[in-house]
Amino acid sequence: MSARASIGSVTDITSLRERRRLATAAEIEAAALELFACGGSEHTTVDDIAAAAGVSPRTFFRYFPTKEDAVLGVKRDFYAAVSERIPPGAIGFDDLAGATAEALESFSATFLHRMVRVRCLGEHDANLRHRALLLDAEQCRQRQRHLGGDMHARLLVETLAVALNTALDDWAIRRHHGEDADLAGVFRATCAQQRALFQLG
Amino acid sequence: MSARASIGSVTDITSLRERRRLATAAEIEAAALELFACGGSEHTTVDDIAAAAGVSPRTFFRYFPTKEDAVLGVKRDFYAAVSERIPPGAIGFDDLAGATAEALESFSATFLHRMVRVRCLGEHDANLRHRALLLDAEQCRQRQRHLGGDMHARLLVETLAVALNTALDDWAIRRHHGEDADLAGVFRATCAQQRALFQLG
Repeated sequence: MSARASIGSVTDITSLRERRRLATAAEIEAAALELFACGGSEHTTVDDIAAAAGVSPRTFFRYFPTKEDAVLGVKRDFYAAVSERIPPGAIGFDDLAGATAEALESFSATFLHRMVRVRCLGEHDANLRHRALLLDAEQCRQRQRHLGGDMHARLLVETLAVALNTALDDWAIRRHHGEDADLAGVFRATCAQQRALFQLG
Repeated sequence: MSARASIGSVTDITSLRERRRLATAAEIEAAALELFACGGSEHTTVDDIAAAAGVSPRTFFRYFPTKEDAVLGVKRDFYAAVSERIPPGAIGFDDLAGATAEALESFSATFLHRMVRVRCLGEHDANLRHRALLLDAEQCRQRQRHLGGDMHARLLVETLAVALNTALDDWAIRRHHGEDADLAGVFRATCAQQRALFQLG
């Protein structure tokens, strides 16, 4: 896992240099979240974010390729945590859903708080939502290749992604309204609801 | 259905003016398809497309909001044909899949040929693929609202969209390789394969 993809999810930090990298990335993310929440991502520049985080634009680009990516690290961390738990080769829906639920259970309160913020920002920020959509699609393609690359793998990965994104939104909305919703629980319920689509006809 | 959304799928053309509109839109689309196939959508400008179609850029923008939209009319026509067949209110997966299959059966050979061309372009044109992805997401949101707007409607619409897009790609690849694949048949088989994901666990 690269340092860029592991803010907040790393449990084994081995060096001072690595800790500094993660701290800088976290500062840039926090600054971007604040600025996007105030003015929207479209009206915020990389220079704005770098200035607010106390780094140079050049440093910014060592951490993130675009301004939108500065707040979507949480999405990449999330994917990495799920990927770690998926066995290679052909697996079924329940295995993939199980690996995903396990990843969701492993997240810290801080990580979950970052996810809620990013999801809520996306509600009103089409630019950010589009970038997240492209990241999701890219992630589905990668995972499809990992699972064999055929039509079955594609259906499996994309069908589960529907349940996952629906669950994430449902959970984030509940959290935003003060409910103590459990992400893995909401995801499992959403998978059951998706399964029921086919049982009911 | 607006004139913009109905190139090629209209069976009841009522006026000369309307026929002229559709002919112009079709010429712009054909010019855009040619140019995108040669140089990619990123290296093609609206001015290039307008010149190749023999219209002014101003006329271009009366028909399409962006250069990518000039070739994605086939996608909008497709959505319109499906939407016409969906009853309002809460329906099940099989009803929605049935309405979709009926729409697929109604398409002319010319329309299907346009779909194959656009799908094949998207294989090598990330810009076009991204625009198509955003159109899909917007279409899912609209249909979700049409079907009640709740989590069930979202799961239903997005899960079916996975089967539909997988089927469209599978079918377009087969057609591209000379196979006489039937779109509605491929879609029904894909839905059955998606249902089997949940039966197998």
